[in-house]
Amino acid sequence: MSSSETFVGYAGLQSFVLDDASTHLQPMTFEPRPLESDEIEIEVSACGICGSDIHQLTNGWNRATFPIIPGHEFIGKVTAVGSGVKQHELGDRVGVSPVCRSCGDCEQCNQSRGQFCPSKVTTYNGSFKGHKTFGGYANKVRVQAKWAIAIPDNIRDIDAPLLCAGITTYLPFKNHNIGKDTTVGILGIGGLGHLAIQWARAKQCKKVLAISTSDRKRQDAMELGATDFMILNKDGTYDAQYQKSVDVLLVCGSGKDTNWTNLVELVKVAGKLVLIDLPEKPLVIESSAVVYNSVSICGTFVGDQDDLKEMLDFASETGVRPWVTTVDNTLDGVNGGVKDLINGKGHYRIVIDGVGRQKD
Amino acid sequence: MSSSETFVGYAGLQSFVLDDASTHLQPMTFEPRPLESDEIEIEVSACGICGSDIHQLTNGWNRATFPIIPGHEFIGKVTAVGSGVKQHELGDRVGVSPVCRSCGDCEQCNQSRGQFCPSKVTTYNGSFKGHKTFGGYANKVRVQAKWAIAIPDNIRDIDAPLLCAGITTYLPFKNHNIGKDTTVGILGIGGLGHLAIQWARAKQCKKVLAISTSDRKRQDAMELGATDFMILNKDGTYDAQYQKSVDVLLVCGSGKDTNWTNLVELVKVAGKLVLIDLPEKPLVIESSAVVYNSVSICGTFVGDQDDLKEMLDFASETGVRPWVTTVDNTLDGVNGGVKDLINGKGHYRIVIDGVGRQKD
Repeated sequence: MSSSETFVGYAGLQSFVLDDASTHLQPMTFEPRPLESDEIEIEVSACGICGSDIHQLTNGWNRATFPIIPGHEFIGKVTAVGSGVKQHELGDRVGVSPVCRSCGDCEQCNQSRGQFCPSKVTTYNGSFKGHKTFGGYANKVRVQAKWAIAIPDNIRDIDAPLLCAGITTYLPFKNHNIGKDTTVGILGIGGLGHLAIQWARAKQCKKVLAISTSDRKRQDAMELGATDFMILNKDGTYDAQYQKSVDVLLVCGSGKDTNWTNLVELVKVAGKLVLIDLPEKPLVIESSAVVYNSVSICGTFVGDQDDLKEMLDFASETGVRPWVTTVDNTLDGVNGGVKDLINGKGHYRIVIDGVGRQKD
Repeated sequence: MSSSETFVGYAGLQSFVLDDASTHLQPMTFEPRPLESDEIEIEVSACGICGSDIHQLTNGWNRATFPIIPGHEFIGKVTAVGSGVKQHELGDRVGVSPVCRSCGDCEQCNQSRGQFCPSKVTTYNGSFKGHKTFGGYANKVRVQAKWAIAIPDNIRDIDAPLLCAGITTYLPFKNHNIGKDTTVGILGIGGLGHLAIQWARAKQCKKVLAISTSDRKRQDAMELGATDFMILNKDGTYDAQYQKSVDVLLVCGSGKDTNWTNLVELVKVAGKLVLIDLPEKPLVIESSAVVYNSVSICGTFVGDQDDLKEMLDFASETGVRPWVTTVDNTLDGVNGGVKDLINGKGHYRIVIDGVGRQKD
């Protein structure tokens, strides 16, 4: 069905360089791969510009395969339904996260951890049956129906960042039982951290310590729900009163000079540092900081369908929402959004708003 | 009581250098600190020479305060009892681990994690009321009674390494629920790893993968209870079949060139790498290895009194014992043991056997 149709999206054709407009996104028309029987087609209504998109467009992770049409947190309406699909109907409002397909029958899928399925397909910069996958910077996307999640009515299209930033920051609360008895630290008040603070408030954590290298973030942090605010100095030091002060430290933003040993020392005995962002440089950590306090350093990665549903329901009930700046769905709008995010002007998520994409 | 008595032990007076006999252990006579009402005095029957003793004697961890009389895994008989002590009587057979005192009334002590008590006193190279603490390379040691653990009859004096190497390798099995459903990897078949393999066998783990850089360890590993054996190449690589093959990897031996990212990649999704030894150089780990597989890197550190009792009972029941080489309780014997351990000749624990110490 719809196989003679063409889609259009904004594509990176080479590594994005801020000051070189020839490297910026270009419109790209493409013929979609055939709709599988277990797939739906979605017309994108709103798509977040995620920090990951910047890593990929600039090839900071060294695994971009150009051309790339980014976009792995989007909401839209169902415009076609595969013959075997039962979950969704034409016109349904659904959201898509960074994973758009999993096998459904492996050790990971059977444990509701489909995001770790060895055969999973990523929503963009992946491939399926020899076709590259293209994300929500396009006007339409085809995904496995089970990876399209129904969106509660009180969540807006432009809340699309819940599908990546939201689930990424929510899952540690679920997996590590972060709740009323937990003192939680959140490092980095940005696209991820501003949601983590809200989850912590909504989970009624005992104490929510927001941590930033800039005092300018203090007011936002308190408004988002932090109970305390700590400055992390540029040299990695901080006020000694905060040593061993949090049960769990959620690292939502780190940099190339991050002093990981000092961060581990913020965590109480038998506590956890959860790595939520994905720094381009390796972690360097003194073993004594880990061993003598029995601290754990834990990875976390997006979520499975069940996690996504739980997160969306919890957001719907508690009012957790991304703070969003929208850009037009034009080429200039989207390139402007990408540049703003690189320049640290996301406050705190930038979202492409509106259906349809310019052809040139 | 006994305050006019003098004790004698083998002391490091400066950083130990293998080829410089003037830096080796010397007999040192000292007046013990007064016996506190909550303390007992123990005449040491057997004391392990632990890898930690080497780090301290050579000052590899940069926190030795000479003179040092090492020894934090020893068994002996009670020779004096403080006025408030109810746990032990004269003549009782007890063992001491790396912690010899804790406050009993802090957040950690109240959670049966006295080894993390901020006021804990280490069995040697620590201090209490202005006195340095000296360990089991001395003829006698005074410790808080609750940190002296009754030794089951079928555990010999020379099994003293259970008190450090034993508890250090046992606690992860307890805290991380390692058991019948667990595939466990054990890196480093040495003073720690040879006990970890035995615990894994005694806990009936599904699979016990012993990992060594040397094929010479294969036979011992299988005899100790391993079900599989993997070579870790000097460059940090290994046969690809072992990627994501273990639920928990116990790192019992690492070196300055350890490739931590490759080790993390041995662990299954949502699995754990437990850091049991304490490398002198920082860990360097690619964040993607941690994040994309939701792996945790966990510290562990000796154990509390309850842990020690549980470990000793379990060893008593199941037959887990250190493989021990003994050295005489003479100065030459002990210096020889230290040198053998530095030279990698421990097979797998070296123990000072016998009561009393030479005066010069």
